[in-house]
Amino acid sequence: MKKTVLLYASLIAAMVLLGYFYYPTTTPSSPWGNLNTGIRGEIDEKYVMLTNESGADYWKNALKGFEDAADKLNVSIDYVGTSNYDATEQATILEQVIAKKPKGIAIAGIESPEVLDALVKADEAGIPVVSIDNTINSPVIKSFIGTDNYFAGAEAARRLVKEVGPSGDLAVVMNSGRPNEQLRLKGFTETMAAEFPNRRIVGVANGQGSNKEARKQAVALLNQYPNLSGVFATNTEEGIGVAEAAVYYKKKLIKIITVNEDIRTLDYIKQGVITASIEQGTWNMGYWALQQLFHVKHNLLNETAYSERNIPLLPKQVYTDISFITKDNVDNFYAK
Amino acid sequence: MKKTVLLYASLIAAMVLLGYFYYPTTTPSSPWGNLNTGIRGEIDEKYVMLTNESGADYWKNALKGFEDAADKLNVSIDYVGTSNYDATEQATILEQVIAKKPKGIAIAGIESPEVLDALVKADEAGIPVVSIDNTINSPVIKSFIGTDNYFAGAEAARRLVKEVGPSGDLAVVMNSGRPNEQLRLKGFTETMAAEFPNRRIVGVANGQGSNKEARKQAVALLNQYPNLSGVFATNTEEGIGVAEAAVYYKKKLIKIITVNEDIRTLDYIKQGVITASIEQGTWNMGYWALQQLFHVKHNLLNETAYSERNIPLLPKQVYTDISFITKDNVDNFYAK
Repeated sequence: MKKTVLLYASLIAAMVLLGYFYYPTTTPSSPWGNLNTGIRGEIDEKYVMLTNESGADYWKNALKGFEDAADKLNVSIDYVGTSNYDATEQATILEQVIAKKPKGIAIAGIESPEVLDALVKADEAGIPVVSIDNTINSPVIKSFIGTDNYFAGAEAARRLVKEVGPSGDLAVVMNSGRPNEQLRLKGFTETMAAEFPNRRIVGVANGQGSNKEARKQAVALLNQYPNLSGVFATNTEEGIGVAEAAVYYKKKLIKIITVNEDIRTLDYIKQGVITASIEQGTWNMGYWALQQLFHVKHNLLNETAYSERNIPLLPKQVYTDISFITKDNVDNFYAK
Repeated sequence: MKKTVLLYASLIAAMVLLGYFYYPTTTPSSPWGNLNTGIRGEIDEKYVMLTNESGADYWKNALKGFEDAADKLNVSIDYVGTSNYDATEQATILEQVIAKKPKGIAIAGIESPEVLDALVKADEAGIPVVSIDNTINSPVIKSFIGTDNYFAGAEAARRLVKEVGPSGDLAVVMNSGRPNEQLRLKGFTETMAAEFPNRRIVGVANGQGSNKEARKQAVALLNQYPNLSGVFATNTEEGIGVAEAAVYYKKKLIKIITVNEDIRTLDYIKQGVITASIEQGTWNMGYWALQQLFHVKHNLLNETAYSERNIPLLPKQVYTDISFITKDNVDNFYAK
């Protein structure tokens, strides 16, 4: 009889403990997501990052940011892109991505009719799209996360004048077909006019994204303008071409500011040929792009304001800021 | 005997169930946050939103965004602020907040020596600070989340010209002491010069943040310039003052664009006195401010790039975008 009582008591105690420790294993659904377990997705949710020239070192940190956000949010990612800067290829890849119905797409896109058409298809399929690095003028794009390229050009102007000193002519070598570089040029020339009105910009040459062409253009400028003392090269290949021209002409004393973190650029900075390069906040581009897409897909934003008041769901622009790579800190930029 | 066997069986079954449902109630710690349970904090983590003129309707949606982010991230918040636009009072409140050691502060701050000094104390206490709505030029501020006020002014210029039609003079009534309004003025006048070079801006009057003074200034402008057809009033009280002047002078046909969502403004829009008002993305200001502070406090960002490469931890600017309140949609803006 005593044994039976003891058994009953044990059973009751066990039941009490069971009640105490029991946690529901399913996630309670709520329009505001899951209040108790934080912001979290499912591992089979796939988000895609799509770039151009996808093999370039430039994208490594952006992809790392995209991956880091996915890890923290418990979702999955894919990375795809074009091998060259090719709008037709990018539109094809974008359509292939859309066919797989991902939860969201972060695109470093080429603003072309083909890509714009494909973006409309993403919208029709209910797939949110944000743009990173390159702005694309499309109503489908919900946010831009990247460098304020006008500001980058303005900062390049201020830095170049500081490096060159009180006198000396300046020039720009750019790829004229790229919107990001057009913005950098605008920031550079307008800042020069507003803050350094006596400074002369003797030429804006088109390197066409080729270091050979950029070198040719830089050589022509160096020949034509003996007082040329500083060049703003608005992207990787332009920077390399101008650096090669400077080395070739033994005019190492011209100051060169460029925008990239390519290993050839780092080497030229170490050698003192390139004075400084603007580094972009690429990790933040990838990280916040995935956060934004996740927020749209999980309805975590202010949907009422959006539908009733036409207030955009996401911030229109997220500017990730820049910093300068110089001889003093260049060693930190080599891959480890 | 049978009863005893049954009791043992029940006890074993209960123990098995207990083992199956048991979940540890503590969160495993990891340098990347909690990979399995998503992005989540602790309910005793306190984040503070601090504004000026804290009772104004304007802050309701920003606070809602701040609260919504806190709910999702499982953390707590406080809301404090000054009753008037008073730098000394704001610095005092900021110091009181710092003394309580919150995990982060989102401030709509007044850029004054007192507030800047108090911000340094926040930094020394290891409390991250981001600014919302107002930019503050301080190295302590890690990010700005708010309206691109230059863009708001530019959009006001485009809208005002469209509403006024092919001819008619324009004017601005503003509070000259407010940085946000200075930026709106800059966007307005520069856009006018660049895109509508033949349009005349006959005056920029200082309403000093008072609807009485703004009304007086608007009356003077209406008297002096009979062709005055459109006014950009860069903030709430200025808009009310200009609207009152228009009603008083039965010059309802002048077009008025303003920037706010005060109930008096909504009423004037309904009556057709104010043509349109720019609505700001305030929910997003509060929401992303808390997300950013949480990310800094939980070391979820790219700390290596920050410490080794001087790349900012957070995006420098998050621009939340704007929309227009007009007669067509004004009913959606009244509190429900």
